[in-house]
Amino acid sequence: MTVANSVQIKSPLAAEELQKLDAYWRAANYLSVGQIYLRDNPLLKQPLTIEQIKPRLLGHWGTTPGLNFIYVHFNRLIKRYDLNTIYICGPGHGGPGMVANTYLEGSYSERYNRITQDEEGMKQLFLQFSYPGGIPSHAAPETPGSIHEGGELGYSLAHAYGAAFDNPDLMVCCVIGDGEAETGALATSWHSNKFLNPERDGAVLPILHLNGYKIANPTVLARMSDRELESLFVGYGYKPYFVEGDDPAMMHQLMAGTLDEIVAEIQGIQRDARTHGFKQRSQYPMIILRTPKGWTGPKEVDGLPIENTFRSHQVPLAKLGSNPEHLRMLEAWMKSYKPEELFDHTGKLKPELAELAPSGDRRMGANPHANGGLLLQDLRLPDFRQYAVPVTDEGTVETESTRILGEFLRDVMALNLDSRNFRVMSPDENNSNRLNAILEVSDRVFTGEILPIDDHISTDGRVMEVLSEHLCQGWLEGYLLTGRHGFFSCYEAFIHIVDSMFNQHAKWLQTCEDIAWRLPIASLNYLLTSHVWRQDHNGFTHQDPGFLDIVMNKKPNVIRIYLPPDANTLLSVADHCLRSRQYVNVIVAGKQPELQWLDMESAIKHCTAGLGIWQWASNDSGHEPDVVMACAGDVPTLETLAAVDFLRSHYPDLKIRVVNVVDLMTLQPQTEHPHGLSDREFDSIFTVDKPIIFAFHGYPYLIHRLTYRRTNHRNLHVRGYKEEGTTTTPFDMVVVNDLDRFHLANDVIDRVAKLRNTGAYTKQIIRDKLIDHQRYIIEHGEDMPEVQDWKWQYYSGSSSEKKTI
Amino acid sequence: MTVANSVQIKSPLAAEELQKLDAYWRAANYLSVGQIYLRDNPLLKQPLTIEQIKPRLLGHWGTTPGLNFIYVHFNRLIKRYDLNTIYICGPGHGGPGMVANTYLEGSYSERYNRITQDEEGMKQLFLQFSYPGGIPSHAAPETPGSIHEGGELGYSLAHAYGAAFDNPDLMVCCVIGDGEAETGALATSWHSNKFLNPERDGAVLPILHLNGYKIANPTVLARMSDRELESLFVGYGYKPYFVEGDDPAMMHQLMAGTLDEIVAEIQGIQRDARTHGFKQRSQYPMIILRTPKGWTGPKEVDGLPIENTFRSHQVPLAKLGSNPEHLRMLEAWMKSYKPEELFDHTGKLKPELAELAPSGDRRMGANPHANGGLLLQDLRLPDFRQYAVPVTDEGTVETESTRILGEFLRDVMALNLDSRNFRVMSPDENNSNRLNAILEVSDRVFTGEILPIDDHISTDGRVMEVLSEHLCQGWLEGYLLTGRHGFFSCYEAFIHIVDSMFNQHAKWLQTCEDIAWRLPIASLNYLLTSHVWRQDHNGFTHQDPGFLDIVMNKKPNVIRIYLPPDANTLLSVADHCLRSRQYVNVIVAGKQPELQWLDMESAIKHCTAGLGIWQWASNDSGHEPDVVMACAGDVPTLETLAAVDFLRSHYPDLKIRVVNVVDLMTLQPQTEHPHGLSDREFDSIFTVDKPIIFAFHGYPYLIHRLTYRRTNHRNLHVRGYKEEGTTTTPFDMVVVNDLDRFHLANDVIDRVAKLRNTGAYTKQIIRDKLIDHQRYIIEHGEDMPEVQDWKWQYYSGSSSEKKTI
Ligand SMILES: Cc1ncc(C[n+]2csc(CCOP(=O)(O)OP(=O)(O)O)c2C)c(N)n1
Ligand SMILES: Cc1ncc(C[n+]2csc(CCOP(=O)(O)OP(=O)(O)O)c2C)c(N)n1
Ligand SMILES: [Mg+2]
Ligand SMILES: [Mg+2]
Repeated sequence: MTVANSVQIKSPLAAEELQKLDAYWRAANYLSVGQIYLRDNPLLKQPLTIEQIKPRLLGHWGTTPGLNFIYVHFNRLIKRYDLNTIYICGPGHGGPGMVANTYLEGSYSERYNRITQDEEGMKQLFLQFSYPGGIPSHAAPETPGSIHEGGELGYSLAHAYGAAFDNPDLMVCCVIGDGEAETGALATSWHSNKFLNPERDGAVLPILHLNGYKIANPTVLARMSDRELESLFVGYGYKPYFVEGDDPAMMHQLMAGTLDEIVAEIQGIQRDARTHGFKQRSQYPMIILRTPKGWTGPKEVDGLPIENTFRSHQVPLAKLGSNPEHLRMLEAWMKSYKPEELFDHTGKLKPELAELAPSGDRRMGANPHANGGLLLQDLRLPDFRQYAVPVTDEGTVETESTRILGEFLRDVMALNLDSRNFRVMSPDENNSNRLNAILEVSDRVFTGEILPIDDHISTDGRVMEVLSEHLCQGWLEGYLLTGRHGFFSCYEAFIHIVDSMFNQHAKWLQTCEDIAWRLPIASLNYLLTSHVWRQDHNGFTHQDPGFLDIVMNKKPNVIRIYLPPDANTLLSVADHCLRSRQYVNVIVAGKQPELQWLDMESAIKHCTAGLGIWQWASNDSGHEPDVVMACAGDVPTLETLAAVDFLRSHYPDLKIRVVNVVDLMTLQPQTEHPHGLSDREFDSIFTVDKPIIFAFHGYPYLIHRLTYRRTNHRNLHVRGYKEEGTTTTPFDMVVVNDLDRFHLANDVIDRVAKLRNTGAYTKQIIRDKLIDHQRYIIEHGEDMPEVQDWKWQYYSGSSSEKKTI
Repeated sequence: MTVANSVQIKSPLAAEELQKLDAYWRAANYLSVGQIYLRDNPLLKQPLTIEQIKPRLLGHWGTTPGLNFIYVHFNRLIKRYDLNTIYICGPGHGGPGMVANTYLEGSYSERYNRITQDEEGMKQLFLQFSYPGGIPSHAAPETPGSIHEGGELGYSLAHAYGAAFDNPDLMVCCVIGDGEAETGALATSWHSNKFLNPERDGAVLPILHLNGYKIANPTVLARMSDRELESLFVGYGYKPYFVEGDDPAMMHQLMAGTLDEIVAEIQGIQRDARTHGFKQRSQYPMIILRTPKGWTGPKEVDGLPIENTFRSHQVPLAKLGSNPEHLRMLEAWMKSYKPEELFDHTGKLKPELAELAPSGDRRMGANPHANGGLLLQDLRLPDFRQYAVPVTDEGTVETESTRILGEFLRDVMALNLDSRNFRVMSPDENNSNRLNAILEVSDRVFTGEILPIDDHISTDGRVMEVLSEHLCQGWLEGYLLTGRHGFFSCYEAFIHIVDSMFNQHAKWLQTCEDIAWRLPIASLNYLLTSHVWRQDHNGFTHQDPGFLDIVMNKKPNVIRIYLPPDANTLLSVADHCLRSRQYVNVIVAGKQPELQWLDMESAIKHCTAGLGIWQWASNDSGHEPDVVMACAGDVPTLETLAAVDFLRSHYPDLKIRVVNVVDLMTLQPQTEHPHGLSDREFDSIFTVDKPIIFAFHGYPYLIHRLTYRRTNHRNLHVRGYKEEGTTTTPFDMVVVNDLDRFHLANDVIDRVAKLRNTGAYTKQIIRDKLIDHQRYIIEHGEDMPEVQDWKWQYYSGSSSEKKTI
C-alpha cells in the first residue's frame, strides 16, 4: 500500500511551456472576473469606471481559479496524450470558470455565435453572465461541455462514474469541492470504484479540491491531517496524490508532473486489464489539490483577509459603488493577469496561447460525450407482445407482474449486450422486485472480491446493485447524459431519498428544451414497486406513495406517470418508456401475485389511450351510469372490481361504469399536459353529474389536484393512502385506509341517490364484513379466504360457464 | 497511528461467565426465532406441529443473531462499568432482536403488561410479532429502548451522535449494517466525530456489523481487505478493532476483551478532556464485527447454503407447510439453543441468567434517554415581543426578517446555555440565512483543527454546520428524540435532500401518538429560507418550494406549516414553534430586505388566528367585496399589496378584500386538520361567490388541494411557482411565474364581472408595464425603480400625510 504522497518536483514543464500555461490560466481567471463584474470595457483599455460595472454582482469567485487551474492542465494533458476527456465541475457555482475556458478554446462561440472571440464578443460574454436574459451563474445545461449543473452539491462523482461506464476511451476529470465532499451522496460515491471495470469502462480521475472552505466555514476534509486524508482515500481504494501550494510556477510543475504520472498509471491499469483480462481491482489514482480559495484574487479588503479564506466564496469586492477604493482594487486585480499579454488588440486570445487548447472534439467544451444525444443509439427492443400473459377471462389468473417485466428486460438486455449501452440499477432490490430474469443474461457487476457463493455477480455484469439510492440515481443520470439507456427499480417509499436528485434532473431536461444544440437523451425510467399496498410486512416506514406528488410539481413536458394495473399493461408501458426521450418516466407496479385483467391487444389499446372505460367490467352500456367507479394502480383496480362485484350482486340494476387510468397525465386538462384529455372526452367518460368513486394508488389529493378544473369534479370522491398502516395483512392495509372493496361499495351507496334509502341493509352487511375481516385476521394472521380467493366472475371470456355480461 | 488490529485473545471471561453469557445469547436467539415462526408451543414442550406455525412468515433472521450478540455483551459492559447506554439498531429490520432482549431484561413486560415473563407471555410475544393487531417487524417506536426505527437504512450513526451531544454520561452503542454503510447518509456520518467534544458530550461506539451481505448481494465493505477497512476508518478518524469469527466461545472472549479495552479507552479520552480541557480530537475506538449472517441458524436448506450467505436475510425456512422436513429443521434449530437450560418450566428466564442484565434504568430498554419526553425540559424563552420591528406605517419599512429572527434565537441560545439543551443546525448556511446574531453567544462547533482566521468556531459552540442536510437532520432527530430542542435552517430547495428523513420522523411521531409510555418530545423546527422567490442569483436549481407538498402528505396532527409575511409574524410563529411538542413545524420566510406589514400586536393576533382579513389594506369594509385577494408567503404578500395599490389607483371604486394566510393549515376543513377553519368562517372570509385571486408561495396546486371542498372553490384562482426561473432579477422571478403585481391585477380584471368590459385600457397599461420591465432589466440588469422602491401608500399609521383608509 505504497502511496506517492506527492510527486517529486521534476519540473516537467520547460520555461516557455510553463510561461504559456500560466498565461492561459491567467486568461481564464481574467475572463472569470470579467464575467462577475464588467458590462463594458472588457479589455480594460480605458480606466475602469463605475458605469462599466454591473449593478448586481452575482457569482462565485472563490472556487474559480482552482477550477481554471485544473482545466488548463487538462488541456495540456489531452493534447499530450490525445485523451478523450470531459470535465465535471462539482462546485458548479464556479460557472464562470467553465464558461471562460470553453470561450478560450472556441467551443463556446461555436454554440453561441453572438459571443465572438473578439472585444465585442468578450463584452457580451461578460454582460450575459448572471444577467437577465443571459446565462445562469452555474455550470448549467447552457454551458458547453457540462453534464453536471452542480447547483445542488454532491453528485459530481456519481455522475463521473456514470459517464465512464461502458466508455472505455473516456477519462472523466471530476473536480469535487471539499465542501461538496461532506455531503452524503458524495461520501459514498468514492466506492463507485468497486463497480468500474477497466477492461470495458473508462477512467475517472477524482480531484478533491481542498481550497479549505465552503460558504462560511472551513471544510471537514481540509482540516484533517494529510495522514488521515491519505488513509481515508487509501481506504476508499484510491492512491492519493497531493498537489499543494500557492506559488503558481511551482504548482504548475507539480500538477503537470503529477498528471503525467497519473495518466501513465491509469493507462497501465487499462492496458493490463485489456490485455490480460481484469484480474483484481486496482488502486486508481486521485488528486488532493490544496490551493487557496480565491487564489490570485484580492488578498485583503477593508482590513479583512480574503484570499485563502471563506470570504472569497462569492464576490470579494462588493462595494464598488460606494467605495472608489474597491473599484481601483478590482482594476488592479484584473490587470494583475496582464490582459495585454493574453489578448491581442482585437480581444482575441494570442495564437501562441490558443494553441495550448486541444482542437475539435477533443476540447472539453465540444466533447460529444457531454452532449449525449449526439451519441445516442436506439435500444434494440424485442416485441413486448411476446411476453404477454394469456388472459382469456378477465380477473381470474394471477401473476407477479414485475416478474413478467423482468423477462422483457432480460431480452432487452440480451439484445443490447453488444452495444454496451443499457444498464439496470437497483439498491439491492433487483430480485426482491422480481426482476430476477435479467440475471439470466447479465450478472450484477462488482469488481471487489467475489466468492463462489455469490449469486450472479461478476466483473462484467450490467445490473448495478448498491445499497444507495443516490448512487443508483447518480450513476444512471451520468450514463443517460452521455447518451445511453437505463432502468432503475426501487422500493416506492425509498425513492424519496432521491427526490432532490430527481428534481435537479427534471430541471436539467426542462432547460434543455430551449437549447437547440443539446440533442435529446434517453428518458430516465423508474419502476417503483414493493409499493405501499404490499408493504404490509415491513410496515409503516415502507409505505409512502408520495413520489408522484414530487414528480407532478415539475414541468409537464418532461414527466410521465404510469400506473399499469397488470402485467400486460406494464409491458406495454415499459416498452413505451424505453423508446421515449427526454422524459422522466415513473411506472408504479406491484410485485406480488395479482389478478390479470387485459389480454395484450386490449392492454395496448388501453395504454395508448391512457385511460378508458372497461366495458367488460361495466354494465351501463346503452344506459346512463348511476355511478362511475374509477381506479388507478393495481391494488385500487382490484378493490374497485371486487366492489363492483359486490354491488352487482346486491343491486343487479345498478348501472356501474368502470374506468381505469394507466396514464395519470390524461386526467389533467389538455392545456396543462400534452396527454391531457379534452374536457369533452373527459365529461363523456366521467359524466357531468354522476358520482365518481375514484380508488387511487397514492395520496388522494393528487387526483383532486389533477381534476379540479373538470366539470364533474364536485362529484368526485377519492380514496387513497392516508398514512395508515403497519405490519398487517395485505387486505388490512386497504381496509385501514378505506380503500377496500367494502368501503368503496359503501361510498357508492352513500352517493347514489336511489340507493340512499334502500341502502341501509347493504351497509349493515358491509359493516359486518369489516368486523369479520378484523376478527379473522387477528385469529388467523391472514386474510379471509373470500378475500384471498376472490376472482372476477363477470368476465367476457368464452371459456367459461359463469355469467357473462 | 497505531491500530489494534484485533485484541489479543486474553480470555477475560471465566468459564462460568462465558457459559452464562452464551446461554443468555441463546435465549435471545431462541426468542427471536420464536417470534418469526411460532404462534403456540413457545417452549417446545410438545413436538412442533404445523398448526403452531404462523400462516405468514414475516421477519428478518439474518441480522438478528449479531444484534443479539452485541446486546448481551453490552449488558455485561453496562453492569461491569455502570454505563449509561442506549442501543441503536441500524438494521432495524432486526426488530425481533431488540424485542427479545428487552423482554429478557424485563423492560418489555413493564411497558406491555400482557406480555408476561412466563409461558403464556412468551406465546403472546411470539404471536404479536408481525401479526395483525400486534407489533411491527422493525425496531419501531413500539420497541422499548429504540429511538431509531431503521426501516429506511442509513441514519443510525447520525442519530447516535445526535443522542450523544450534550449527554456527557451517555455511551451510545450504534450497530451499523454493512449494507446500511453503503448509503450516502451513513457514509458521511462517520465524520460526526469532528463535531463531538468529550468534555461535554457523551460517546458513540460504532459497531460496523460486517455480516457480509445485504438482501441479495454481498456488501461493499465486507469485500474490502482488512487493510483497506482499517485504512478507511483510520482515515475517518477512528481506531478500528476487528472482532472476527464464528465460534461462539472464542467470539465471546474476543468481544468481551475488546469492549473492556474500548471502555477504558473512551473513559480515558473523556477523563483527559474533562480534567485538562479538550485539547485535540482523539481517535475514538470503533468495532468491525465480522460474523456470519444468520449465525447459528440453519446451515443448509434444500441443498443451498444459508448461514453466512444472503439467503439467511429473511426467513431461512419458508416452506413449512408443504415440506415436513422444514418443520423438523425449524424444531431442531430452535432446540439447538437448549431452551430447557434457559427457561424454567413456567417459561421464566432462569435467575442465574436474568441477573446478567442490568437493572432499572440501566437496562437499555428502560434507559430514559430512549424516551426523550421523560427528560425534556421546557426551553427558557425571552419575550419575543422584545425583538419587534417597529411598524407604524404598514408596508413602508424594509427589514431582513430572518436577521431579526436571528436576534431572538441568539437570546434563546443565551438563556439555555447552562441547560445545554438547544442546538441550531445548518448546512453551512447559518449566516447566508442571516442568523448571524446567534454566533454572538455561541460559536459553531468543530473539533477538527481550528485556525485563527476562522469565524466564530470553537470546540464548544452550539451551532452545528456541516455541508450535509442529512447530518443536520439526523443529528437533530437524535437530539430531539433524547429530549432536547433544536432549530434547522436550510435553503428551501435543498431541504428535499431530507424528504425521506422527514417522512420517517413524521411517521415516528405519528406512531407515538398511540403509545402512552412515549412522552411528547420537542418539535422538529425547520426554517426554509433563501427561498424560491429570492434565489434569482443562483438560478433554476435553487428554486423549489415543493417540500410543503411532501409535508402535507403526512398526518395532520403532526405537521404545521407557517408562512409569516414579515419579521414580526416570523417572531410570533417561531416562539410558538419552539414551545410546541410532537410536531414537525415548517416555517418559510425570506432573508432579503422586505417590507414590513404588521406591528407586533397585530402580528400576534394574526398568527394566533392563522389567517385574516387585513383591514388596513382592504377597502370593502361595510360593503360586499368585488374580489378577494389572498396571499400566503412574504413575496406573494408583497405582490398582492402592490397589485391592490395598482388596482385602487385605477379603480377607486373597486372593493378589494385582502386576506393573508400565515398558517396554511387553516385553509383545510376542520375535519381534516385541527387548525382548519369552519366552513362558516371560511365562507365569511372568502365569500361564497366572489372571485378569489390567491398568490401563493409554493406550487399553486397545494392551495387547491387544501380548499377544494370549500364552497367558493370554483372561484378560486391561484398563482404560484410554476417552474419558471433562472439567474435574473428578483422581480423578474415573479413575472415569469405570473405572480407579479401586474399579472395579479390582470387576473382581477379578468374575473371581476364589472371590470370585464371596461378593463381593456388597464390591461393595456399592464401589458406595457411588463414590456417596460422586460426592457429595463435587460438594459440595466436590475429592477425598475418603481418596483424596487414601491411602498404601500394606504397605510393606517398616524405619522403620515399620505392617504389613509
Ligand atoms: C446540497 C447543497 N447544500 C447547500 C448548498 C449551498 N452552498 C452553495 S456553495 C456551498 C459551499 C461549497 O463549498 P465547496 O464544495 O468547498 O466549493 P468551493 O469551495 O469550491 O466553492 C454551499 C454550502 C448547495 N449548493 N448544495
Ligand atoms: C434506504 C433503504 N434502501 C433499501 C432498503 C431495503 N433493504 C432492507 S434490508 C436491506 C439490506 C440491509 O443490509 P445490511 O445493512 O447489511 O443489514 P443486515 O445484513 O444486518 O440485515 C435492504 C437493501 C432499505 N430498507 N432502506
Ligand atoms: Mg471549498
Ligand atoms: Mg449485512
